[in-house]
Amino acid sequence: MNKTLLQQNPQVTIADSFWLKYMQLVKEEMIPFQWDVLHDKGDVIIESERDDATIPTEKSHVIENFKIAAGLKEGNHYGWLFQDSDLYKWIEAAANTLALEKDETLTTQIEETIDLLEAAQDDDGYLSTYYQIEAPQLKFRRLFESHELYCIGHLIEAAIGYFQATGSDRLLQVADKAIDCIEAHFGKGEGKIDGTDGHQEIELALVRLYELTGKQKYLDLSAYFLEVRGEDPSFFTKQLEENDRIGLKQGPIPVINTVYHQADKPVIEQDSARGHAVRLVYMAQAMAGAGHHKQDERLISAAKKIWENIVQKRMYITGGIGSTVRGEAFTYDYDLPNDLMYCETCAAIGLLNFSNELLKTETDSRYADIMERALYNSVISGMALDGKHFFYVNPLEVDPQASTFNPDKSHVKATRPSWFGCACCPPNLARTLPAIGRYTFTQKADEVLLNLFIDSELHGEQDGKAYTIRQRHTFSETGRTFITVEKTSAERLRLGIRIPYWAEHPVLVVDGQEVLTETDNGYTYVAIISGSTEIELAYTIPSNELEAHPLVKADKGKVALQRGPFVYCMEEQDNGKQLHLTALTGAIRPRFLTDDILGDIVCLDAEGEVRVTEDEWQDTLYRVRQKPQIIPKKLTFIPYYSWGNRSLGEMQVWIDKEESHV
Amino acid sequence: MNKTLLQQNPQVTIADSFWLKYMQLVKEEMIPFQWDVLHDKGDVIIESERDDATIPTEKSHVIENFKIAAGLKEGNHYGWLFQDSDLYKWIEAAANTLALEKDETLTTQIEETIDLLEAAQDDDGYLSTYYQIEAPQLKFRRLFESHELYCIGHLIEAAIGYFQATGSDRLLQVADKAIDCIEAHFGKGEGKIDGTDGHQEIELALVRLYELTGKQKYLDLSAYFLEVRGEDPSFFTKQLEENDRIGLKQGPIPVINTVYHQADKPVIEQDSARGHAVRLVYMAQAMAGAGHHKQDERLISAAKKIWENIVQKRMYITGGIGSTVRGEAFTYDYDLPNDLMYCETCAAIGLLNFSNELLKTETDSRYADIMERALYNSVISGMALDGKHFFYVNPLEVDPQASTFNPDKSHVKATRPSWFGCACCPPNLARTLPAIGRYTFTQKADEVLLNLFIDSELHGEQDGKAYTIRQRHTFSETGRTFITVEKTSAERLRLGIRIPYWAEHPVLVVDGQEVLTETDNGYTYVAIISGSTEIELAYTIPSNELEAHPLVKADKGKVALQRGPFVYCMEEQDNGKQLHLTALTGAIRPRFLTDDILGDIVCLDAEGEVRVTEDEWQDTLYRVRQKPQIIPKKLTFIPYYSWGNRSLGEMQVWIDKEESHV
Repeated sequence: MNKTLLQQNPQVTIADSFWLKYMQLVKEEMIPFQWDVLHDKGDVIIESERDDATIPTEKSHVIENFKIAAGLKEGNHYGWLFQDSDLYKWIEAAANTLALEKDETLTTQIEETIDLLEAAQDDDGYLSTYYQIEAPQLKFRRLFESHELYCIGHLIEAAIGYFQATGSDRLLQVADKAIDCIEAHFGKGEGKIDGTDGHQEIELALVRLYELTGKQKYLDLSAYFLEVRGEDPSFFTKQLEENDRIGLKQGPIPVINTVYHQADKPVIEQDSARGHAVRLVYMAQAMAGAGHHKQDERLISAAKKIWENIVQKRMYITGGIGSTVRGEAFTYDYDLPNDLMYCETCAAIGLLNFSNELLKTETDSRYADIMERALYNSVISGMALDGKHFFYVNPLEVDPQASTFNPDKSHVKATRPSWFGCACCPPNLARTLPAIGRYTFTQKADEVLLNLFIDSELHGEQDGKAYTIRQRHTFSETGRTFITVEKTSAERLRLGIRIPYWAEHPVLVVDGQEVLTETDNGYTYVAIISGSTEIELAYTIPSNELEAHPLVKADKGKVALQRGPFVYCMEEQDNGKQLHLTALTGAIRPRFLTDDILGDIVCLDAEGEVRVTEDEWQDTLYRVRQKPQIIPKKLTFIPYYSWGNRSLGEMQVWIDKEESHV
Repeated sequence: MNKTLLQQNPQVTIADSFWLKYMQLVKEEMIPFQWDVLHDKGDVIIESERDDATIPTEKSHVIENFKIAAGLKEGNHYGWLFQDSDLYKWIEAAANTLALEKDETLTTQIEETIDLLEAAQDDDGYLSTYYQIEAPQLKFRRLFESHELYCIGHLIEAAIGYFQATGSDRLLQVADKAIDCIEAHFGKGEGKIDGTDGHQEIELALVRLYELTGKQKYLDLSAYFLEVRGEDPSFFTKQLEENDRIGLKQGPIPVINTVYHQADKPVIEQDSARGHAVRLVYMAQAMAGAGHHKQDERLISAAKKIWENIVQKRMYITGGIGSTVRGEAFTYDYDLPNDLMYCETCAAIGLLNFSNELLKTETDSRYADIMERALYNSVISGMALDGKHFFYVNPLEVDPQASTFNPDKSHVKATRPSWFGCACCPPNLARTLPAIGRYTFTQKADEVLLNLFIDSELHGEQDGKAYTIRQRHTFSETGRTFITVEKTSAERLRLGIRIPYWAEHPVLVVDGQEVLTETDNGYTYVAIISGSTEIELAYTIPSNELEAHPLVKADKGKVALQRGPFVYCMEEQDNGKQLHLTALTGAIRPRFLTDDILGDIVCLDAEGEVRVTEDEWQDTLYRVRQKPQIIPKKLTFIPYYSWGNRSLGEMQVWIDKEESHV
């Protein structure tokens, strides 16, 4: 198989202290911790991600499930139908970490895991421990909920990661065999299942596998799964009805919400973000990728419409998506309540990947803008600064009382728990953070895009000759990015440097000469000739008050602060209780500080005011209005991603904006 | 039995055009319509009261259930466990309507229904069609959900109503037999069930039956059920465990939320409003009533603490209660979201009754203030002005888009459906509206209180001699209430006239002489001697801007308008879409108008402003803040109870208050 592998990961090394810290936490905390969880070792307290007694939280049991499927142990399956994917995401995280730095323990652990997967896999390639153990007669027969293809998608991504890190194709072979099994069962042919999984994932994984191997069959299978989705909106229900007819009933047939699954109509007809948020962005990423490689304008165009609908009407300022816990779903245009939303960490990661995929098709810095917005805010807020606690839901407003006493907000945790019954988000972070190199640069046929200001080095090739692009930056008083390109090929290389929407007065200096910073779709281009080129981009970073579209009811009269890529929030720790009584009235000043917990951060100090809760109210709930008593108050904001790390308390991103009353 | 009946309803006749219209709708629309529903006649479209596929909505089947229980038909029970109570509430509504005016058809229908109840009742007095038909072995064995005592509570209330209307004790005998059965099964004795029903109701019904009959055993049984509640918080679960042990398992044992049932601790230790809102106020009404008659200060004091907690911290300005659909429950102090709340019509009725009960114990106009607030706003908003459509949930802010596309708000209906699967609210309105005489006056040993300004006549007795108190009022430019008392007894009668908190500059004229309007706990007293006394109370009725306590986050910076007893709201029909972009800036003027649908109402016109949704926003979701463009706008408010009668659209009670920007 090795011979056909076309493209290894572009080698990006990260040298950015901000991101290295996260990568270190993944390696030193998350991967060993999750290894123990998967093996049911240690005293892991697993928390339900919302108020639902049916959520399995007793243990992980993932390795046990595989051992039972492999015939190495006896027992029952435990956990979610998609429990297997926890292991695949762990392998991908471990592999992506190995890619950064060799590690014998990790390699041994992965190899040992692959042994187990090989043992568990059926001869025909089938692999899904729940169905293998509990219901082999129902394999591929309850696709609305089975997650069988979803899990194989994660297996494929893990295999790609392990190959890119080590050159070993052992896991790719397991994945390939699983895909053979899927190809044998799915498709338009006689006796085949003409349908797909309730949870999209395999589609994007197959695109990635095509990119790695160049094998058309992967791309075709991905395109098939995209095409068949929603072709017959009653597919999922018909499967269950068929089961009932042939004696394979498993409980009553539920009412299936096909919008939740994005299966109510063909994907190329979907032009807005509806249903389960993670599923939507995973699907849309595959649409962009498959559309790109197949030059299928219908897929690309639908993916772009979905993306535009998200970023223009259905995305929180943090890059979070999903306005409701019910169905973990999108709702409708401009419906962005700050205290009820879902904003799942996985969904923000999905939006990051979806945007990155579109950037490959179309050079437009708006895609990188959204990648950056998601990554620096809603993605990393999913993880505590100790690397040991995680959010599933990333709210924009928290009152611990509400989380405790109002069941509509029971999914909004006021502190990060250590692990969840549904452990999708933490391992998703663990596999994403070591791989941020893939977002930093985009290599195209004729150009390289520098998307994110992350200290790093890209090692590329042109005409078979190596080149290196190295970037270093600072986001202090003035933003500066230093780029050094070393190349030997005589051909010109177009380097597109993203000018972020938040940078003011950008000045570009190339080899000591100030050049005009004209942008084309948000990138400014430098033609690099051979030898060494020194580039400096300087700009100011304002602390901005952003407002939301007037139809966002929740944000009327409010502003959110942003400096550079970071959205800010207020916490009770710095500003006292009753944050809703405060308002922003005056100037905002950045302050550089080093905090024991928060590390080196820029916080924002601002002039504000607070309504006095006078004693005279006492036991009155409503009264004839009096002019409010207002006093000045200094307000302090910290970067959103870092909230909830110091103490339990209120948090608020959007704050009332008032002309000063005092 | 007749001989022991002590007290018929104080004879209050209503002559108020506003309320007579409601009573007429109950008689001409609701009672015949519900009769058809109960008999599964006609084309009734039954709507689920929230997004829940388990709610039975196919038919009512109530009469069928009773016929099957009586052995007159074969078949299964259909509907809720508490489906029987629909019939009892219908009887009470019909009886309360009969009390206003004799009606042969109604009498025949009630008598026919009593025949059926007598036939359905077991020899030992047991009556609950679900358990009689489907699970006789589980009678009184699943009290957390069975509603067996709840239903008998409604049977008792129906029987009281029918006796008061007609003097017939036929239904009282059915109720009495059912109570005998309950007494035989419940109590502290050996082999008895030492516990109570999951849904409070029988407690208050037994107090009412004691008041009617003077029979101590009813009061004692009520007090027992109050005392045993929460004594052993695991009572409900233990019942189910016991069932399992003796082979009476019915499904898995659920996790029982004892706070939902107000059964987590003894009622006398409960000092705040927690759990299911209707259950809480029904329980608290019984506590006030039983406490009053038993002179049990512990019960009265706990009831008062609960009442204070509601009205000081957990009640909407409309008198609605219940901040969340999940558990239809209270949440925590000052948590009053305007677009998520439950504010069930039944709960507002319960608050009305609870407040009325406390007024019997303690003369304080605050109780009458809350009765009035609930009655004129959240109670009657439960019914369309055509008498044919009903709200279960009475929201303070509605956007039809949100109700349709955000599942967190699926319980918030933007228009009143015709009937509900869980038909508790419409019949509750139907039994309450013909009986508002019971709230208008309160007769105590030594005084009569005039609580509500409703044109009416009270026929009382003093020393065996009749007296009459007649009141007429107008709420036009100036509020005026004319009271005429005719009495023959030579003893003085203290008449307490409530001076409402919203009345300004009250002037009291007694027989042509202006007297000081000193108030004692909100009532001003006139000592009436024999003969005829003419009293006039005049006052101005301001159109007030009310504000909520600063800790009510949802109402920060907002006001709600109130004139007299009526809270106001804005509708899209009068003010256009995007109500949230408007603000109130200037003067409010009442306008008297007659509308085809709304009838004779006072609307409020006000100076306001609206934020312009400029085209320049286009596809931008977030941008650096600019000064908002604001233009003046005339705003129109209508009484809250009348919203949703003209067209489908947005509605909002609380509106931003701004000093004029223009």
